[in-house]
Amino acid sequence: MNEKWTELERKMRESGVSTLLITDPKHVYYLTGFLSNPHERFLGAVLQSGSEPFLVVPALDEEAAREATDLTEILTHGDTDDPYALLNQRLTGALGTFGFEKAQVSVANFERMQEKLAFSRYMDVGPWLRDMRVRKSTEEVGKIKHAVHLIEQVLSQSLLKVKEGVSESELVAEVEYQIRKLGADGPSFDSMVLSGEKTALPHGVPGDRLIRRGDLLMFDIGVYADGYASDITRTFGVGELSGELIRIYETVLAANEAAIAAIKPGVTFASIDRAAREVIEAAGYGPYFIHRLGHGLGIDVHEFPSVHGENELLLAEGNVFTVEPGVYVPGLGGVRIEDDVLVTASGVEVLTTYPKQLTHL
Amino acid sequence: MNEKWTELERKMRESGVSTLLITDPKHVYYLTGFLSNPHERFLGAVLQSGSEPFLVVPALDEEAAREATDLTEILTHGDTDDPYALLNQRLTGALGTFGFEKAQVSVANFERMQEKLAFSRYMDVGPWLRDMRVRKSTEEVGKIKHAVHLIEQVLSQSLLKVKEGVSESELVAEVEYQIRKLGADGPSFDSMVLSGEKTALPHGVPGDRLIRRGDLLMFDIGVYADGYASDITRTFGVGELSGELIRIYETVLAANEAAIAAIKPGVTFASIDRAAREVIEAAGYGPYFIHRLGHGLGIDVHEFPSVHGENELLLAEGNVFTVEPGVYVPGLGGVRIEDDVLVTASGVEVLTTYPKQLTHL
Repeated sequence: MNEKWTELERKMRESGVSTLLITDPKHVYYLTGFLSNPHERFLGAVLQSGSEPFLVVPALDEEAAREATDLTEILTHGDTDDPYALLNQRLTGALGTFGFEKAQVSVANFERMQEKLAFSRYMDVGPWLRDMRVRKSTEEVGKIKHAVHLIEQVLSQSLLKVKEGVSESELVAEVEYQIRKLGADGPSFDSMVLSGEKTALPHGVPGDRLIRRGDLLMFDIGVYADGYASDITRTFGVGELSGELIRIYETVLAANEAAIAAIKPGVTFASIDRAAREVIEAAGYGPYFIHRLGHGLGIDVHEFPSVHGENELLLAEGNVFTVEPGVYVPGLGGVRIEDDVLVTASGVEVLTTYPKQLTHL
Repeated sequence: MNEKWTELERKMRESGVSTLLITDPKHVYYLTGFLSNPHERFLGAVLQSGSEPFLVVPALDEEAAREATDLTEILTHGDTDDPYALLNQRLTGALGTFGFEKAQVSVANFERMQEKLAFSRYMDVGPWLRDMRVRKSTEEVGKIKHAVHLIEQVLSQSLLKVKEGVSESELVAEVEYQIRKLGADGPSFDSMVLSGEKTALPHGVPGDRLIRRGDLLMFDIGVYADGYASDITRTFGVGELSGELIRIYETVLAANEAAIAAIKPGVTFASIDRAAREVIEAAGYGPYFIHRLGHGLGIDVHEFPSVHGENELLLAEGNVFTVEPGVYVPGLGGVRIEDDVLVTASGVEVLTTYPKQLTHL
């Protein structure tokens, strides 16, 4: 039983939960090492107080599950089995308070659970997993670093295709081609390449616009690899940029660096957001920084915690999140510079290594 | 109010449901024309008996929703609003029996709904939408045909890259590059290219294996375009194939054609599966056809109904599904030939047009 299960068992004792069923596939991966998308089929990791945890997987996933996990007991169910009835047979003693993830289980499945498992009390344990995931282990940081390494290779390769007359969509296609070719699991979100005045749209959609001299060119891209995400944004100049665009770039870069310099255990997430925002406000671009500074990063590309000006949660060693200040001037253009960072015992390690100085392509 | 809403209102009357909340994003698209992934945000289409339907969307989606739908009323909510409280303000009169999709709504959201909307009775309306979606309109068939057209272009283009020494992964990368380049929304499932003995694995994962002369080469690929899916499989010979592989190919092709010949309104889905299975059994490969014949196709790439030997549901005009018999001989190789078909008033229209005769690349 690894330390994650030990931590869960401690939380169960404190809360009076005696049976735990985890069904979010990402939580199952986090706890057992087995990553899969079961689609509509049932996948669960189960722990009863005082017993060993076990997995319940679709029969066709049995071999993959055995290879991936160090749990010794794996129950399988075929497409004609009722997995809840199967689970009920396997569980021992009184179920007591039943813990599951309320945000993950549908009303339909909850009704099946209630019918077959016949528990009387239940409790949402989603927040337990959320809180555990916020502090990454060395192994998890290693996987995130690998995902970062891959996306930085993708960025380098894709930049070779940039020239006047190429479209945003063609560059997105190149990014996704490189993601596959380098062997990542896939993009961690819709790859974004925007150019010219479209860079002023933080949620713009890449299209047929052709790259021209004098354009800003923004890549916001990431991959999943071995179940962990990376997420990076870099903004470039195509040929020479106007004086105002250069001033915006330098402001965003200074904001990014100010935020990173402020990172250490024990300060609030709000203070990191403010460190960046103050730089941008001082340069007169405050109204154009229209989103939060960043978000947690790990098994999900956007995960807890949110890095914004109201979040009084304290940073702790092992937190991994993005730092992505941006300035977006409608009709002119926008710059965003996004790094992935790890909170260390004494400060910060920046996981993204791609250069941030303004580069003219 | 389009005919889908009229049909829903009829079902509501029959079942005593007076307020309907649809939150599956694909059902919202089906009913309103607005396709989006709201992630954790609230998206809903609402109908109260005797009133006009309306949409509830995140504020940042308002413009996109107005462009996409002909519903005149669109409520928006910001990230600090409680969408259920907002909805409660808007609803009029007694809620009566509240209809929602039990398989779509999480226990956490159901508890929020119950708290804010204060209904006492509720009913699962997911099956209503499932049953409505099974008969495609002319407009829907047009969208599926477009998705088929795109994936067939992708297949043609990707075949140009086939040569000895290229890997499965490189061909997958090419497929996904073409999918983007041709302007599809994206792949409708993980693109699959398998070669040689790996074609015997119906759920094999493309990897580093290099294409060699004498290999079978299988493409199972599809796209989403304008919210609708295509799904096609073709299997090729790289140079000359052995006599047994040719015999397997001809058996699978005959099974595919026998199934298609059996399609018309009023017969059972089981009978279509059996038409293919009998051809394969007669050739002695019965034990190697180890999956169902096919599945419904539309807004989801795998949707209701399942085309298998126990499904006594009757075919009806407007059904769209896949016909994909396969024979998989472990250690030797496998062949699958998959078409997308539409049930017409008098028989069948095969939507996929890519040639099926054995082709040696």
